[in-house]
Amino acid sequence: MADVKKIKPGLSKGTRDFLPREVAKRNYIFDTIKSVFRKYGFEEIETPAIEKLETLTGKYGDEGDKLLFKILNSGDYLKDAPPALLQNPNAKDLQPYIAEKGLRYDLTVPLARYVVMYQDKLAFPFKRFHIGPAWRADRPQKGRYQEFYQCDADIIGSTSMICEAELTSICTEVFAKFGFGVKVRINSRKLLEALAEYAGCLALFAELTVCIDKLDKIGFGGVKGELVKLGLSEEQIEKITSLLESNSLTDLTVALGNSEMGGKGLAEVNYVLQKAGSPAVEFDLTLARGLNYYTGIIWEVVLDKNNDALKNISMGSLCGGGRYDNLTEIFGGQNMSGVGISFGIERIYDVMEELNLFPEAIAKGVKVLFVPRGPEMEEFTFKQVQAVREAGISAEIFLGNVKKQKHFKYLEDKNIQYMVEVGSDEQATGAYRLRNALSRETKEGLSLEHLIKQLSQG
Amino acid sequence: MADVKKIKPGLSKGTRDFLPREVAKRNYIFDTIKSVFRKYGFEEIETPAIEKLETLTGKYGDEGDKLLFKILNSGDYLKDAPPALLQNPNAKDLQPYIAEKGLRYDLTVPLARYVVMYQDKLAFPFKRFHIGPAWRADRPQKGRYQEFYQCDADIIGSTSMICEAELTSICTEVFAKFGFGVKVRINSRKLLEALAEYAGCLALFAELTVCIDKLDKIGFGGVKGELVKLGLSEEQIEKITSLLESNSLTDLTVALGNSEMGGKGLAEVNYVLQKAGSPAVEFDLTLARGLNYYTGIIWEVVLDKNNDALKNISMGSLCGGGRYDNLTEIFGGQNMSGVGISFGIERIYDVMEELNLFPEAIAKGVKVLFVPRGPEMEEFTFKQVQAVREAGISAEIFLGNVKKQKHFKYLEDKNIQYMVEVGSDEQATGAYRLRNALSRETKEGLSLEHLIKQLSQG
Repeated sequence: MADVKKIKPGLSKGTRDFLPREVAKRNYIFDTIKSVFRKYGFEEIETPAIEKLETLTGKYGDEGDKLLFKILNSGDYLKDAPPALLQNPNAKDLQPYIAEKGLRYDLTVPLARYVVMYQDKLAFPFKRFHIGPAWRADRPQKGRYQEFYQCDADIIGSTSMICEAELTSICTEVFAKFGFGVKVRINSRKLLEALAEYAGCLALFAELTVCIDKLDKIGFGGVKGELVKLGLSEEQIEKITSLLESNSLTDLTVALGNSEMGGKGLAEVNYVLQKAGSPAVEFDLTLARGLNYYTGIIWEVVLDKNNDALKNISMGSLCGGGRYDNLTEIFGGQNMSGVGISFGIERIYDVMEELNLFPEAIAKGVKVLFVPRGPEMEEFTFKQVQAVREAGISAEIFLGNVKKQKHFKYLEDKNIQYMVEVGSDEQATGAYRLRNALSRETKEGLSLEHLIKQLSQG
Repeated sequence: MADVKKIKPGLSKGTRDFLPREVAKRNYIFDTIKSVFRKYGFEEIETPAIEKLETLTGKYGDEGDKLLFKILNSGDYLKDAPPALLQNPNAKDLQPYIAEKGLRYDLTVPLARYVVMYQDKLAFPFKRFHIGPAWRADRPQKGRYQEFYQCDADIIGSTSMICEAELTSICTEVFAKFGFGVKVRINSRKLLEALAEYAGCLALFAELTVCIDKLDKIGFGGVKGELVKLGLSEEQIEKITSLLESNSLTDLTVALGNSEMGGKGLAEVNYVLQKAGSPAVEFDLTLARGLNYYTGIIWEVVLDKNNDALKNISMGSLCGGGRYDNLTEIFGGQNMSGVGISFGIERIYDVMEELNLFPEAIAKGVKVLFVPRGPEMEEFTFKQVQAVREAGISAEIFLGNVKKQKHFKYLEDKNIQYMVEVGSDEQATGAYRLRNALSRETKEGLSLEHLIKQLSQG
């Protein structure tokens, strides 16, 4: 390494490092969610970060294709490009010849590939969870990264509405564990389809949902404007927006209850509301979810704005999902219905941080720091530390500069509860002083045996 | 997704998926190692998969640079390439213009970058561990993947030999937990340097260590041949190989004890052997480690071939590491000494699998599977399942085809311990039969309350 020129250390745009305390907090979030997933019988899987581009391309729309990170082929990556193209290369035409692999864009397309590849080895209905990074070449901005974690649970191969009931229950249970109030908004894509049918614009269903999806951002005025642009008449727009504004299941039952699609959608929503039996779960017709592969119940979890502590926190969806069909078809699998939810762990982290909800215990370091009073005491101190560790107690020996009192900062930085200084006196007498770093209380004259007993209890 | 052409699902070369049971086993390995790291005061950090290429390039030699996965710039990636170069492009010259990012090759260079960037926020000596994937465009072969996990613990900023003692102790403790016998081979690069000095070929030190590193593969005959090629005389070669063959600290003390470097190396090795106090830790002069950034103690953990159960398993190093200097210098950091070890979790996995050492408990599914005797029983059954879950017991409701008896396979595939079938009888009487899937024992006539009590105990 010696002859390499020095460089200023920096991160690639849109990526992050995590300090130990941040990792501890993120692990707390992951572990909490995992424990609920496992309680409901979801099993963890893993898929690689690198996928063939043919697996990824075309699954996320044109915009998504542009946001895929593509990996340059190894070695002479130009060797397969047609000579004519190399005469006058352009990025778009050249790319398929020089890059065959990419980084996964989400965990859903890899799941579809996985289910088809291992269908003989999996227990169906297949309930899996997967927590891991995904990558998108989005323009980085506050809260949006090019490398970010996804945290998904899906059930593949069952059309039972019990799946929806379970996933709703998982949502409420997870956020109850985190300790802040949320609303679990639900809707059915079938109701939105019935709404389009009711307004006589079923052919524009996909466009309509995209409009409704923007409601939070552009308001009803904006949505009306967009619907005009789609070519809808005033009467059609009135039919749509009045139902959206009333947002009432009673009104919807009157308007859509007689259509087949409307009836199904109402049944779905009523079923989930009834099974949830929680005031946190609410119907919301204005919930649309942009992705047009959803076909049934859709979810979105948001902060409960009726809760005073949360009123002033501006934060988007903390969890979302829905039922989709034909996930596996593209990989040659049989038609299997799927339904899943995805937790937005970066946002959950920000809310927890804002409300100071992380339990103190998760940032704790080892139980005790042994501080040798100078390098000549290190060997003897190490022996005591090893004895403490052998008793199953986490412990450290401080190897920094004791003369400069650096051990106090170390104790604080690593959130270590107890400290024992070891000098020639302690070595001679075998009696130690245990100091509680927080309360500053001390216990004197403890033998190593008593020290271990004390630490095992405290 | 509907209009995308169907493709055969497949993995990118050298990458892997993991089935739920494999993930459970891998998690067991990670968790075991983490628990030991934490007991010794190591804190977990995370760095991104994507790094700037300028961070990665030049750190792993020319061969390493070729194995870096490079990520194509987003959008019109050709726009920064000099027009002249585009007239007649070649892969090597074009690459810097079209790819600025890459996938990390290991966790060590990111650590160096990290320590320099956050030196004001970290507690020093900085003890960190990091478990995560790294990527290399190696030719895939048995046991070697393009995407693979590394599992590293390092101490940065202390020259105390207590660090070496701690890391040695971590090695023995981790493998004791896994339950198979290993030898922890140690050496000091200073002894190898003294050996080169002793043979009068100090200028060829780097080349000499590369030769010795190949000893396992090419034997003493092969090493002698390589030394001849390096231009060493018969006498020089004899000096080197006789000490390597005797591999005795006593002989080395006689031959190298008077040189400054030899004295230091002997002191290091003796110190670690004494502190370890374990017959599993052995001196081995033939241990060289190819990487020439090591400057002091080096480790390598291998299967204990004296152990009958392990005799026939052919497996390379399971863990390795060493002390290195100037890790952070390249990123403009002050000169900080570091020392670290890295566990080869893929190989540990293979040994555990071969010896059937994974604890049975890790593959366990939920505690109990409720099986509705037909779709009409799903709603009622779900209610019972939710009550069981509320009592803190993990449970599932089976949503597959009961008529085809698929629940028995599900029970077995997911390793679920108990089963309760729910039909109209159970609904009417409120009395359930609990069946132990393994022993096939049953308990009849249990109320839901008793069922929960039973499951909490069993």
